[in-house]
This record gives sequence, structure tokens and C-alpha cells, in this order.
Amino acid sequence: MVLDTILEKIDSNQNRYIEELLGFLKIPSVSTYSHLAADVRRAAEWVCSHAKRVGLQARLIETKGHPVVHAWRCRQPDQPTLLIYGHYDVQPPEPKEEWHSPPFSPVIRDGYIYARGASDDKGQFFTYLKAIEAILAGAGELPINVKLLVEGEEEIGSPNLGPVLAANADLFKADAIAISDGSQFARGVPTITYGLRGLSYLQIDVRGPRIDLHSGAFGGLVKNPVQALCEILAQLRNPDGTVAIPGFYDQVLELQAWERNELAALPFAEQELTQYLGIADLSGEPDFAPLERKTARPTLDINGIWGGFAGEGAKTVIPAKAGAKVSMRLVPNQRPEQINQLFIDHVRRLAPEGVKVEVRELHGADPVLVRRDQPEVQAAVRAIATGFGTAPVFIREGGSIPIVNLLQETLQLQAILMMGWGNPDDGTHSPNERFRLQDFHHGIRSVAALLYELAKPGA
Amino acid sequence: MVLDTILEKIDSNQNRYIEELLGFLKIPSVSTYSHLAADVRRAAEWVCSHAKRVGLQARLIETKGHPVVHAWRCRQPDQPTLLIYGHYDVQPPEPKEEWHSPPFSPVIRDGYIYARGASDDKGQFFTYLKAIEAILAGAGELPINVKLLVEGEEEIGSPNLGPVLAANADLFKADAIAISDGSQFARGVPTITYGLRGLSYLQIDVRGPRIDLHSGAFGGLVKNPVQALCEILAQLRNPDGTVAIPGFYDQVLELQAWERNELAALPFAEQELTQYLGIADLSGEPDFAPLERKTARPTLDINGIWGGFAGEGAKTVIPAKAGAKVSMRLVPNQRPEQINQLFIDHVRRLAPEGVKVEVRELHGADPVLVRRDQPEVQAAVRAIATGFGTAPVFIREGGSIPIVNLLQETLQLQAILMMGWGNPDDGTHSPNERFRLQDFHHGIRSVAALLYELAKPGA
Repeated sequence: MVLDTILEKIDSNQNRYIEELLGFLKIPSVSTYSHLAADVRRAAEWVCSHAKRVGLQARLIETKGHPVVHAWRCRQPDQPTLLIYGHYDVQPPEPKEEWHSPPFSPVIRDGYIYARGASDDKGQFFTYLKAIEAILAGAGELPINVKLLVEGEEEIGSPNLGPVLAANADLFKADAIAISDGSQFARGVPTITYGLRGLSYLQIDVRGPRIDLHSGAFGGLVKNPVQALCEILAQLRNPDGTVAIPGFYDQVLELQAWERNELAALPFAEQELTQYLGIADLSGEPDFAPLERKTARPTLDINGIWGGFAGEGAKTVIPAKAGAKVSMRLVPNQRPEQINQLFIDHVRRLAPEGVKVEVRELHGADPVLVRRDQPEVQAAVRAIATGFGTAPVFIREGGSIPIVNLLQETLQLQAILMMGWGNPDDGTHSPNERFRLQDFHHGIRSVAALLYELAKPGA
Repeated sequence: MVLDTILEKIDSNQNRYIEELLGFLKIPSVSTYSHLAADVRRAAEWVCSHAKRVGLQARLIETKGHPVVHAWRCRQPDQPTLLIYGHYDVQPPEPKEEWHSPPFSPVIRDGYIYARGASDDKGQFFTYLKAIEAILAGAGELPINVKLLVEGEEEIGSPNLGPVLAANADLFKADAIAISDGSQFARGVPTITYGLRGLSYLQIDVRGPRIDLHSGAFGGLVKNPVQALCEILAQLRNPDGTVAIPGFYDQVLELQAWERNELAALPFAEQELTQYLGIADLSGEPDFAPLERKTARPTLDINGIWGGFAGEGAKTVIPAKAGAKVSMRLVPNQRPEQINQLFIDHVRRLAPEGVKVEVRELHGADPVLVRRDQPEVQAAVRAIATGFGTAPVFIREGGSIPIVNLLQETLQLQAILMMGWGNPDDGTHSPNERFRLQDFHHGIRSVAALLYELAKPGA
């Protein structure tokens, strides 16, 4: 079988792949540092020429910021097309003094590559180029069509990716997207992320008297805006931790029995977590397990509050105004627009007399749920089982990933394969970021297997 | 009658008194400005030598800061002793550009003296020296004993007055205290303040997880400290505006029918006030009139709140901690220690699981209520009627006056005569501070009358 040959090739080339990755990691492509702009471009060029070297066509698409690498090989008109997303930019390395070895002088220790970007996302993304290289070297042609989209601004919020996608929708048209920019559920537990929570983020502003007042002279005469705000905020959640906004749960796609069973089977070290957090117990909706609450249940949190005097000592003031930021994590099939409206209606109902209450919508993101019965997803399951030697688990993430929303929105794709090759303790965004050599190797194997799995009839 | 002669003398010397006050007002005795320390001392010396000139013995008591002027004339062993409190320091004049004439170049316009300190408290305090002078000039001796305590640090919180009082309690022993450092209820409505609200000031700190958390990764797992804080704060007051702390009203000395009738008879421009405050309606305890709520009812206000992200835009954080400052205005016979304990007990009961809640006591002051049936108070009523030609109204103030608490505590005196000669629109602490010439004159007359009234049997 062809794939076996390819996998053998991958196994025997491990050391060379690592050496090449070390070269990539030496480029300090910190996208947020303008004084490193030349290095960021050098990383883009490195990816572009490496893509050409492994047998793809490739070019840079210029943006207002850092360029996007566009590479492709589409020679199988009857086969599906996979869009591969990655990013070549990295987080700043600071605080540098906490690194055991310099962030841009990658070293190998105890089975890990240590360097800024090793896991996020240079090492993970590089697995795709190496798998493509192995297939082209071993079989002469790819089994499917591939397109690569490698941006240089992920770590600064991808400000220029939207326009690039909008202007080049045809170039990036595909049947599925593959993203490896996250982590496995735990070490040795390869993972497919099939859900992301969405977001509704709003601000409440409460205004009372025109000016701050002396609480001696006016206490008893005016409604205190902070008090009003607290009365509103206290009624956003019920005492049992559920969200109190009428209609909030109406659209929630309830967890299926099989899904709950799966989540229950995942290892979850509750005591380790509470110790890490410094709290006695976890809290939340009583009818759901922690992992369900963390990933598949909607939540509401006050992210910030302010008003009046917050300094040292005592100031006897009735503040003129107060405010709070409130966000809700949404799950399928909640939509930010609907939830925002329910929130605004609820706050208006709660607003006490004597103050003016204003609600502003600041930010929103749709939740993402990838249907697991899609053939592309099943192909990914088999590919990871081949690559890692063990079948992946399925999880949902509690957060949002803006680029996933952006890709899904622009390209209108249902099959999004989020397969993190990293580990939760890789230290992405932290000092001593690392990537496990074994995960790097298993990732390359999985990508190679994926391209063959997607080529099978029905996939 | 002797007093009539004295009052005639006062009437005929008006212009000289004003000229002398203008000299006093030229000294820029801003106690908070260290570069003006020499001027502050010059003001103390001015008071000291003026007190000697009018016939008192006088000296400076040095402190760690600005000196206290101690003056006295105690030649009537069978008569009561009146302690007169005043302060010779003033607020900073800033913003200077808003003054129509320089703050320390006093001028007379339209029946007012304009200068920093004209009303607060140089002009008001000066009435006592002029009345004493007139009596000594007209009758050769004072009808009672007087002691003067004139400090130079009132505007910076009287940090050194406590030690001076403690070390000289015998020197300042008296039967009554007179303070003219406030205002009449309204122009042409001379006023005796017979009550001050007290204060309990506390801080609530709520701690949740050890560190700020990502609301995507942890939303649904931990109790949010801001949410917990809001739940507590929302339950400190009932929906009708009353304080919800069990036992809070137990010790409250209820308003008597006559007191309510008196308050109801005072002019209170509710619409003018709501317009000034920029609110539609006044709020507060439904069973009490605004003036009752403002002065004779206890209240609770959140003075400040903080926690999490308060910047521009959206940050999806579950804050590790949150806090609030809460104060209560107390009325007779509430005591800060008792109320603090009720507050702490209530907050402890309300504290939800999953967070740590700590309450700290920051500041307290006892309420003050002067019994109006005391002969000294009745003497003051008659004296003001003589001095102003109209009987005073009685009011309670909503705020606290720390020096009154300090004087009462150290000297253990019940008869505290708070008689403001100023007006609410004098602009104390503001640009273009002023003092009405007519009030200055009526104040001097009232003080003269007061010394005679206090000398009467039964007063």
C-alpha cells in the first residue's frame, strides 16, 4: 500500500525534518514588533520557498501588514480540495530572563524542541509541508488537491486576513479546512476539536446625577448608580449559577447522551484544577458536569466593573456613573444577535427608576459545531489513528477562535478539521515554549494519512 | 439695658469691622501649601494679636503643623464658660482664572465681601472677636467666661487638633461650644444645626481564583468574584430604598411629630434640586420626606466598586478579585461599632459559596444630636432672634463634621451651638467665595447677645 511506504519514509526522515524546523524557528518573526518586520517577511519567504521546494506552487499575497503565503497543488480534478491554514508569526518572547535557552536559538532537550513558535504554530504547521514532501517524493503526486493559507498576523488578531480572503475567495475554495494550531486534550490523547463556543460581549453604563455627590449631603435623596448596576448584575444569573435572562437557553442545542458519555470518559483532574485555581470547589450549573459546563454549556460572566472611588481609604461620594462589561459564551445554536437582544431586553426590564441605563454591543462571535458524521471528519479520525497509533477523542473548546469564524464565514465550509498536535503544557505564549518531537512526528504521519483518507470514495 | 448699648456700638462700627476683616483676608493662609507656611503662621499671629487687642489673653500653642491660637478671658467664676471654635486657615484658591477679583485681594461688591476665606471661616469666626471687643468697650467686662480655640489645619483634616485637645483638656473645659463655620438654611433664614449624621465606612473584598482567568477556558467552572460582590451589594438595600441589614433601624431615634412638622415647614425647592442634579425625581425611603431622608434618616451608599477589566473594548476575563467601598450615614442613636457589626454579619450571611469575602472597617463617626431643650440652646435661639431680627430655624445636617465629633469626644460636652452665619451660595471651597455684609453684621450682633443670654440665670 502506498501510504505505508510514505509513512516509512516519514519515519526514516525524522531527524532531517527536525533540523529543518530548527532553521525555521531561528527567524524571530514576532508580528507585533515593527522593528522585526524584516524578520517577519523573512519567515514568509522561508515558508514560500520551502513550499516550492517540496513541490507546491507558492507566492506571497501582500497586505497592509505582513504578507500571506499562498501555496497550492491542484492536479486531481476529480478529488476534493483541502485548505490548510497556518501562521508563521509568533508571540513576543518576553520575559526573556525566564527562558532556559534563548527563544530564537532552538535546542532539543528531553524529547522536546524548545523555541518561541515551536508549537504555536511553526512546528505544527510544518507537519503539512513535510507530509506533502514525503508523498510527492514517494508517490510522485498528491492523492487530493491542497491549498495553503499561511498568515503572518495571527498573534495580532489577523487584521488583514479578512480582506485577503474576501478578495481571493475563489483561490481558497475548498471542501474542507485543516487547522493544527492547538493542543491535544492531554499528552498521548490525540484530539479533534469539533466545537467552539461563541461570544456576546456587551457593556452596561448607568448614569445617575450629573456629578459626583457628597454622600452626607445627598445620601437618601438620589438613586446610587453603582447600587442600580449591582441590582441589575445580580439578576443576570440565578442563585444556582444558571443564566437568568428569559429565553437564553431556548436555542441551545442540548448535549446528546452519547456526547455526555464521551465527555464523562475523558480524564478530568478536578482536584488538580481547583488546586491550581486556588479555590475550594468548582461552581456552575448543577445539572452538568464540569467538562460539559466548560465547553458545551453557555455561560455569563461579568468581565469588569467600575464606578466611584477605588483608591486608598475613604471617600464619601455618591458616584455619578458606573459601568460593567458582561460577556456570554454561546453554544450551538445560539446566535450573538439574538442573545444580545434578549440581554438588552432583560437589562431594560431590570433597570430601576432614578437612573439611565444604556447597553452597548461590543463584540460577538458565532459558536462553531462541526458535524462529526461528515466523511471528512471520519477521514480525520482514521488518519490520526494511523498517525498516532491511537484513535482521537472529540472535544469542544470553551473559547472562540476568531480565524475559524472568519474562515467559515468567508468560505462557507462545514468540514473544519481542528486537529491540535501540541500539548496543553507546551507553554505557548509563555517562556520556554516547546513542542514534543513525538507529536511533531505523529503529526506528519497523520497529515500524510489524512490526504489519502480524503481521497477515498465517500470521503 | 446694657446689650442695647452694645448693639448700637456694633451697628455704628460696621465699617471699621469690615475694614479689619479685609486685612485678615489678605493673608493667604492656605494650610495645605507648604510654601505658604509662613503666611499661615502670620494668620495665627494676626488672630493672636487681634485677640489681645480686643481684651483677651492669647498665645500660640505649637503643633507638628500649624499653631493653634488659644485665647481666653475668664473673670466670672460664677458664670458659665463658652468655648469658641474657629479656624484661620483656608482652602486653596484654585482655579484662580475663575475669580472675578484676586482671592487674596478682598473687595466689596453688591453687599458681599469677595475673598478666599471670607465665609470659611475667617469672616464667620471674626464675629466673635468683634462682639467681645464691643462688649468690653461698652461694658468693661464680659458677662461670662470665654475661651477661644482657633486652629490652622481645619482644611487639611485637623491632624494635630486631637493631641492639642488631649494635652490641654483643662484649658478648654467649658459649658458650651459655639461654632460658626457653616451656613444658614437659606438666605434670610438663620439656623441652628442641632444634629449631624454619623458614619460607618467599610470595604468589602471578594477573592475568587488565584489569578485572572480566560472566560472561554473557565467560564462555567468558577464563581465570578464580581458577580458574587454584586449579589451581596444588591441585597444591602430593599427595592423600596430602605436598608436591608437586619437590625439596622433598631436603634434609630424616630423623628417626633413636631420635628417632622418643622422640617415640612422649611422651604425646600425639590424641582430646583432635581434640575441641578440632572435627575427626573428624587429617590429614597418612601415613608419620609426628602428633607427627612437627607438629614434625619440613616442611609447606605456604595461609594466605589472595582474589579476586572475597565478599559476600552473587550477583554474576556474572569477577574480574580473585586471590591467595593460602602458607607452608611447614621442617625441618633446608631453607633458605628454596632452598625459595623450588623453590616459584617449581614455580608457574611450573603456571601455566596466559591469566593472568599472579607470586610474591613475604614472609618467611623458618631452621630450628633444636640438636645434643644438645653438652656444654652434656648439662649442661642434668643440671641439669634436679637441679632438677625428673626428667630432661627432648626435643622440637622446630613453629613458629619469631624471636629464636632472630636470636640464632643474630648471635652464631653452636650451643649454644642452650631450657628452658621454664612449662606448656601457663599461658594466656600469654590472660586469667588463671598460673605454677605449683612450676615457678618448680624453674626456679630448675635454673638454679643449670646454672651448676655448665657449669663442669665438658668442659661
